Amino acid sequence: MAERQVALAPLPLTSERFAPYGDVIEASRGDAAAMNEARFERFDNLCDVDAAEGGSVSVSIARCRTATELPLRIDKLERHPLGSQAFIPLQLCEMVIVVAPPGESVDLSELRAFVTKPRQGFNYHRGTWHMPLIAFSTGHEFLVIDRGGAETNCEEVVLDDAVMLEAV
Amino acid sequence: MAERQVALAPLPLTSERFAPYGDVIEASRGDAAAMNEARFERFDNLCDVDAAEGGSVSVSIARCRTATELPLRIDKLERHPLGSQAFIPLQLCEMVIVVAPPGESVDLSELRAFVTKPRQGFNYHRGTWHMPLIAFSTGHEFLVIDRGGAETNCEEVVLDDAVMLEAV
Repeated sequence: MAERQVALAPLPLTSERFAPYGDVIEASRGDAAAMNEARFERFDNLCDVDAAEGGSVSVSIARCRTATELPLRIDKLERHPLGSQAFIPLQLCEMVIVVAPPGESVDLSELRAFVTKPRQGFNYHRGTWHMPLIAFSTGHEFLVIDRGGAETNCEEVVLDDAVMLEAV
Repeated sequence: MAERQVALAPLPLTSERFAPYGDVIEASRGDAAAMNEARFERFDNLCDVDAAEGGSVSVSIARCRTATELPLRIDKLERHPLGSQAFIPLQLCEMVIVVAPPGESVDLSELRAFVTKPRQGFNYHRGTWHMPLIAFSTGHEFLVIDRGGAETNCEEVVLDDAVMLEAV
């Protein structure tokens, strides 16, 4: 039987669309509080940092060495069974992500792709399947907040059919 | 007796200079690990996230509403007795910070000022005295990683003498 090919077009990332997979980290919610004599407004509780089973919270930076171009063929996803994982861009740039809901396997019909706006970050909840990080410019940097600890915390699944992530 | 005036000139932020106060969050250390089939390099364990006494880890964004200009007179510092507090810029910009070592009071001779490079963030260790956040452009955003929880976690000290934070 010939391989099926699934085309996946990125939609703009919003907290409503992303709710089944995680949190959108952005300063656009309505509940800003004044801080420092109102020189700043502060948007609190933007993501659920989950370091299950006694893990610590780790802060890292991922720097792009090889830029990715779209369209891109995706052949596997990964998930972190012991914790959440957040990515926040450290310069103004777009990101494209692919997710599927937590579960033992991935149904290709449940894949979703999203494109971020500059200054939007996101947090994958524990167990959310996702494409490994890609970036569109060498040298771009992303803050990573995830679970530290020696336990194995990354699982991969190979997709049954070819998935083509389309250009934005 | 006339008030003394202390002038404070910012020095470039480096992890060596900042070690008594906290961590510099930047992708410049020598221990990068390859990730995602070497499309990225990952700089791990960039700061010590401290949410003492059962606190949660909170992720927020602070957005500047009123830009600050230097020179600036500083009349108070604050500290967080229950946790660390990290600030990471979400656009390429400089920041200026003022710190003093943990302790019950602040000796003006121990004040230090630092200026960051673009893409440098920093993490105040628990108890480090610091000037409340300032920024130089309205609309600039900073990711904040600190301790969540209902307990009081901010103390202020009023400085004995006028401190003038000088321009960079």
